[in-house]
Amino acid sequence: MAERLVVVGGDAAGMSAASQARRHRAPDDLEIVAIERGGDTSYAACGIPYWVGGTVQDRDDLVARSPEEFRRDHDIDVRIRTEATELDVDARTVTIRDLTFGGEEQLSYDHLLLATGADPIRPPLPGIDAPGVFGVQTLDDGQELLDALADRDPKRAVVIGAGYIGLEMAEAMIQRGLSVDLVERFDQPMSTIDPDLGERIAEAMRGMGIELHLGVDVTAIETDDEGWVRSVHTSEGELTTDLVILGTGARPASELAVSAGVPTGARGGVVVDRRQQTPVDGVWAAGDCTQVFHRVTREPTAIALGTIANKQGRIAGTNLGGGYATFPGVLGTAVTKVCGLEISRTGLGEHEARQAGFEPICATVRSTTRAGYYPGARWATIKVIAERRTGRLLGAQIVSEEGGAKRIDVFAMALWCEVPVEELAYVDLSYAPPFSPVWDPVLIAARKAADAVREAGV
Amino acid sequence: MAERLVVVGGDAAGMSAASQARRHRAPDDLEIVAIERGGDTSYAACGIPYWVGGTVQDRDDLVARSPEEFRRDHDIDVRIRTEATELDVDARTVTIRDLTFGGEEQLSYDHLLLATGADPIRPPLPGIDAPGVFGVQTLDDGQELLDALADRDPKRAVVIGAGYIGLEMAEAMIQRGLSVDLVERFDQPMSTIDPDLGERIAEAMRGMGIELHLGVDVTAIETDDEGWVRSVHTSEGELTTDLVILGTGARPASELAVSAGVPTGARGGVVVDRRQQTPVDGVWAAGDCTQVFHRVTREPTAIALGTIANKQGRIAGTNLGGGYATFPGVLGTAVTKVCGLEISRTGLGEHEARQAGFEPICATVRSTTRAGYYPGARWATIKVIAERRTGRLLGAQIVSEEGGAKRIDVFAMALWCEVPVEELAYVDLSYAPPFSPVWDPVLIAARKAADAVREAGV
Repeated sequence: MAERLVVVGGDAAGMSAASQARRHRAPDDLEIVAIERGGDTSYAACGIPYWVGGTVQDRDDLVARSPEEFRRDHDIDVRIRTEATELDVDARTVTIRDLTFGGEEQLSYDHLLLATGADPIRPPLPGIDAPGVFGVQTLDDGQELLDALADRDPKRAVVIGAGYIGLEMAEAMIQRGLSVDLVERFDQPMSTIDPDLGERIAEAMRGMGIELHLGVDVTAIETDDEGWVRSVHTSEGELTTDLVILGTGARPASELAVSAGVPTGARGGVVVDRRQQTPVDGVWAAGDCTQVFHRVTREPTAIALGTIANKQGRIAGTNLGGGYATFPGVLGTAVTKVCGLEISRTGLGEHEARQAGFEPICATVRSTTRAGYYPGARWATIKVIAERRTGRLLGAQIVSEEGGAKRIDVFAMALWCEVPVEELAYVDLSYAPPFSPVWDPVLIAARKAADAVREAGV
Repeated sequence: MAERLVVVGGDAAGMSAASQARRHRAPDDLEIVAIERGGDTSYAACGIPYWVGGTVQDRDDLVARSPEEFRRDHDIDVRIRTEATELDVDARTVTIRDLTFGGEEQLSYDHLLLATGADPIRPPLPGIDAPGVFGVQTLDDGQELLDALADRDPKRAVVIGAGYIGLEMAEAMIQRGLSVDLVERFDQPMSTIDPDLGERIAEAMRGMGIELHLGVDVTAIETDDEGWVRSVHTSEGELTTDLVILGTGARPASELAVSAGVPTGARGGVVVDRRQQTPVDGVWAAGDCTQVFHRVTREPTAIALGTIANKQGRIAGTNLGGGYATFPGVLGTAVTKVCGLEISRTGLGEHEARQAGFEPICATVRSTTRAGYYPGARWATIKVIAERRTGRLLGAQIVSEEGGAKRIDVFAMALWCEVPVEELAYVDLSYAPPFSPVWDPVLIAARKAADAVREAGV
């Protein structure tokens, strides 16, 4: 008789795992049921700002594979608009509810994969649930926002939170012709980037016409007579607006796990081993709902990011399919493109390094991204963080106009291998005038960091 | 009394070394004399095709630092249009000749740095030295070619050799409005790229209107009544032309070293240790004239490339300045942009791997360089070469439209650290829709190579 795998959550991690498991085990050996609360599977949540901003035209473009395709091509029993409400890990059953018709059903399983993703953080503010306040987590969220743009012709938007999503959404609103106020409690946008580089980002945002309110707390959201948002109250006054967008981050959606006694750890992420198995027999987890091992701090953390979810899903699916695969951990690599800037980071920032117990030595360089004489050369500012005694690379951050973003991957690779900056400075990277100066900015930054380490002494 | 350092060759390696040595030792401690046969110092030879093609406007743009600047700012006694004709390593003297006025002089030295660069290979063909046959090694070469373009209004060019320079010059001639025949003795352009990717390059070149003659030997160059080139004879017939450009490669310019008994090795490159010291007391060497250690083959080779020359010059200069630095070797990383393609490689190709005694397993993937739904996504074809038993990365090659070139550096970094492709497939690289699909092409290619290694078995 076939075993049954139940996957809770039909986005990146869940469906990667499901299709990978299917690749290894046929339907008569493994039945796969995938439960998804929303209406879509395998969609690109990170593409939502580009869709809302108009760069991507069609909602369907963001769906890598639809429920129908999974059913037809992979023999996966995908149930959309269905929620897992209860998990009994002793009986190995999960209770699911049809959100359209309301029926409940109990599914038994041999293997369960928790891929419940992350929940947007909704600060407990008066008015936070009012119509006109939008999250951007799912395609349905994006659609609601686009509908509001079409129906209400709003003129002003307040974005709360200046992280990746907040910045991308602020730009999207500018592209839609709205005027935008961005409210951030920290003193800089993109607090995952060190302050010295953050200032540059702030400049670029102001240059696009985004009104920045930094070091400012939101205290309440006020609605009009119809109940629609009309203003945002902050520690520095009131901002009149036609809509509010939340860019306040996300946390692992691990309620189901917690309620069933599956252990959670860092930031509420489900605890998993290298093979994505939880400590509870038969229960696996992957993606934004889990905690992940950070290779530099050697501590668990939680990061909501599609690229990690896809990798973990694939690892889980390989193991569920009877294979053997392990997830090697993360570096905290991230990149975005906003307001004409490419912003990227990997490893630890200066402050994070200190928090993790390292003594960081930093160096920042500004270099061109092409040979100086080659037309179209742009600037890249690179900050390198190294460990004082060993010179080991701890992290890097790049803010550049065009042409710098993916250079972070060279640092990521060096970080992965624990290369000292002294060594990195002489690695045989590619060179041609259209792509870099003869000393690639990565090498220049590493060299300057190596000099700083040497000067700091032992 | 001050010691004297004589640097023979005033381009990348020589002047990097000279200025680095100066940084560590003041003029009253170390006198530095730099001898340069041509009229320029520290010029970007790799920029010549872009200058000749019109992308870069001004000759001076290609000069990073002029002789005057070195004299004024660094107290380096630069003597241009001066040739070193004889070297006596026992007496520690070098004889130099002023090429303008003809005078000779003997300079004694405490330390000598050979930075004589590479000589273009001029195949021993009848007519090879005729007016109208151009090399593209120095700025003077480039100027002569530009003068010929202006004065003679040529309609047709034959480029001999389809390596990096040959391809770049063929494109430059197209940009100048000439019709171009490119003759290459191998069956594909860019023989440093594996044939399966080479075909794509050939297509792109034909698409630009370049007439490719592959697997064809040049037998003679014929001149007209004035002595100017008029045609190129090949194994497949005669090509009428107004000028000929040599893209037939270069080899270490080590005659002076050889004549003085300084040992040479691979491809005629001067033998140096990790600190760029030759086996002869007081004699150092750096740049294109040396042999370099290849980290994958673990054999010496010789590669004429500005990025290596700069690094070696800096290493030599640090050591000559009383510091300690070692050159870690090369990977054979290279990149170019021709005919709308970005072409890059690092490590060993399939055939090279076999020649070096490895059993290679290869995988080739075609992927987009952005998320599929993000506008402007382009294609990249990536070939990964891995070692059969260990899965260790041996090399990678990328041919892409826009956006792929610098990805080779991630492979270079992985290769540097001898990372297995299985591990590379899960490295935490950056992801955002404008920059890559959620699985970066590097990861996809590594994963496919890992699968191939697994399938090949032990």
